[in-house]
Amino acid sequence: MIEVIIEDLPTAWPNARPGSPEFLTAFLPINDHRCIPPLPVGDTPLLAAPRLRQALGMDRLWLKDDTRNPSGSTKDRASQLVIAKALEYGADTVAAASTGNAATALAAVAAAAGLRAVVFVPADAPPAKLIQMMSYGADVLPAAGSYDDAFELSLAACDRFGWTNRNTAFNPFTIEGKKTAALEIAAAMAPETPDAILVTAGDGVITAGLAKGFADLETVGLIARRPRLIVVQPDGTAAIATALRSGSEAIVPVPGATSVADSLTVSSPRNAMLCLREVRASGGAGVIVSDDAILASIPRLASLSGVFAEPAAAAALTGLETALAEGLVDRDEHVVLMITGSGLKDIAAAAQALEIPEPIEPTIDAVAERLATSS
Amino acid sequence: MIEVIIEDLPTAWPNARPGSPEFLTAFLPINDHRCIPPLPVGDTPLLAAPRLRQALGMDRLWLKDDTRNPSGSTKDRASQLVIAKALEYGADTVAAASTGNAATALAAVAAAAGLRAVVFVPADAPPAKLIQMMSYGADVLPAAGSYDDAFELSLAACDRFGWTNRNTAFNPFTIEGKKTAALEIAAAMAPETPDAILVTAGDGVITAGLAKGFADLETVGLIARRPRLIVVQPDGTAAIATALRSGSEAIVPVPGATSVADSLTVSSPRNAMLCLREVRASGGAGVIVSDDAILASIPRLASLSGVFAEPAAAAALTGLETALAEGLVDRDEHVVLMITGSGLKDIAAAAQALEIPEPIEPTIDAVAERLATSS
Repeated sequence: MIEVIIEDLPTAWPNARPGSPEFLTAFLPINDHRCIPPLPVGDTPLLAAPRLRQALGMDRLWLKDDTRNPSGSTKDRASQLVIAKALEYGADTVAAASTGNAATALAAVAAAAGLRAVVFVPADAPPAKLIQMMSYGADVLPAAGSYDDAFELSLAACDRFGWTNRNTAFNPFTIEGKKTAALEIAAAMAPETPDAILVTAGDGVITAGLAKGFADLETVGLIARRPRLIVVQPDGTAAIATALRSGSEAIVPVPGATSVADSLTVSSPRNAMLCLREVRASGGAGVIVSDDAILASIPRLASLSGVFAEPAAAAALTGLETALAEGLVDRDEHVVLMITGSGLKDIAAAAQALEIPEPIEPTIDAVAERLATSS
Repeated sequence: MIEVIIEDLPTAWPNARPGSPEFLTAFLPINDHRCIPPLPVGDTPLLAAPRLRQALGMDRLWLKDDTRNPSGSTKDRASQLVIAKALEYGADTVAAASTGNAATALAAVAAAAGLRAVVFVPADAPPAKLIQMMSYGADVLPAAGSYDDAFELSLAACDRFGWTNRNTAFNPFTIEGKKTAALEIAAAMAPETPDAILVTAGDGVITAGLAKGFADLETVGLIARRPRLIVVQPDGTAAIATALRSGSEAIVPVPGATSVADSLTVSSPRNAMLCLREVRASGGAGVIVSDDAILASIPRLASLSGVFAEPAAAAALTGLETALAEGLVDRDEHVVLMITGSGLKDIAAAAQALEIPEPIEPTIDAVAERLATSS
């Protein structure tokens, strides 16, 4: 694992603006700031969300709104570092398998930097993600089968064609890149430290990235203790959370894994062992939530905070309510929900929790009638 | 029109971070920072986009990436100020008509602040915008007919039910709120000043907001001169650009206005006269572009910059290429493209310029075959 460059820290923290070249070169293995891709990533808001706090009775709740990243998800953080290293090493093609967001993030950052992106996705990925990554100019290869099939295929293709492999967990820079979310949370909350972070998991890389970030901060003395990491997974794809809850050291794959949260739908999580270890070391836990609860959490989160999240992101709120019920989190703790992707990524999912009203005639009487009916 | 609070400026500029309470209260008519809604708006990147610069031979081109706003469009800037004033005045319901983005922005900021939003939209608005505004909890009234019909209906409803009216142009705070984009551009480029801004127009409010921002900056001596405002409109809804090009003082409405850029599709632009006056005073001009060129500009912009824009936003790039051809902009000028909304707002439009590839079998031979075919 790459170590933080400690000698730069005293001047870089907390004066450097998150996302700035000074911030990134201080905390990431970027040797030359000219290799930072010309598309700003991170520096996303940490929101107090007062109405959500009130609804949950949690005065110290925060939302890390990573929907504000350039392609709309936390995955941009990993792609930023992967592309920076590809530029440094002189690579011209970077490939990855993805449920959608990682490929889109790779495509966006590669487009800005002028590298070729080749991405392998399950053929049934949400259309918005496919259209977005294609618009960025990526070579998109929708593969019949699951994300796990696409992952294996991308490994073989990188071997065969000599491409740089950006696959999550496989490429250690994906974990290292995602740690910037932890650095930003800590910077925004200082001098307080979060007690717990709720984060959803597919492969478990965002979780490991957060763990690495907080560990770095503890190592250099910028925080006194690490927060507990609470991993949230849907019940149809809960390999990591199941192991956490059973106390098992082994991960049992979930053949035919399925969830409305497409970003989390993984049969064999690629980063499960590191994720398990880090969550346990943090004193954290796993919680499991239903697809119905995830869908309901999309409008609940949006209407109480103004943050519109995709299923895999809104699931953090579902997970928080479960964790509260299970006593894993106290209402007076400093708690952060990682909101990892925009609701615009999967409109069809959000629509399942809503009913689009019938059009009305454009008359004031029709307005009055509709309002009387709906209230 | 509300005047900028001049006495706060010397300390507020350029040290206050754009989007911060200090920045907003210095430049906007916000009397109490506690009325600023708890959802950060603006402070979006001004991107150098080196590959786009290279493609166009324009070394001083910039993109103002307003897709990064909380609901994904520039309209959040207007809603932020409207809701701040609604909070100050003690209003509980804010209503607006919208082609989609303004209603979504109102819904998002109102949700964060705890106000009720009632929005009138054409029944054929893109599904993503409808689903997004409903997720934020707005009362959505899709009205049979055009945006212009919805606009009239919303005026009548505000009268009848006593709601605060957020309609664009009708409520002066919409123009005032949107000027923050100009302030941020000037802050990011200082000590340089932009020579020209390319901005698309429906009602013409974003244009007027930019004009007001640069005028404020000139008034207080923070910039030496205002940039030329170049208004871009699709050929099916070009009332403002047509008047600009003909030298007419009158706006001729476009009955049955139509464009792939739904955000710009307006028969009778509500802010046309002020927009005309400001564009002419700036030494600017109007350009008219086709729907086909707009659609093609979505992947062109995304693949050269990493910014995925909706049709109404990507049209600024089309407009730039037209303006270059017409001699309205020189390649060595400092030019900014306003990218006003995210491509995720209208995936169906982006898809029209692309062809989703057929799935391949998950074998390395199938990969090799596909690559050989597509290259």
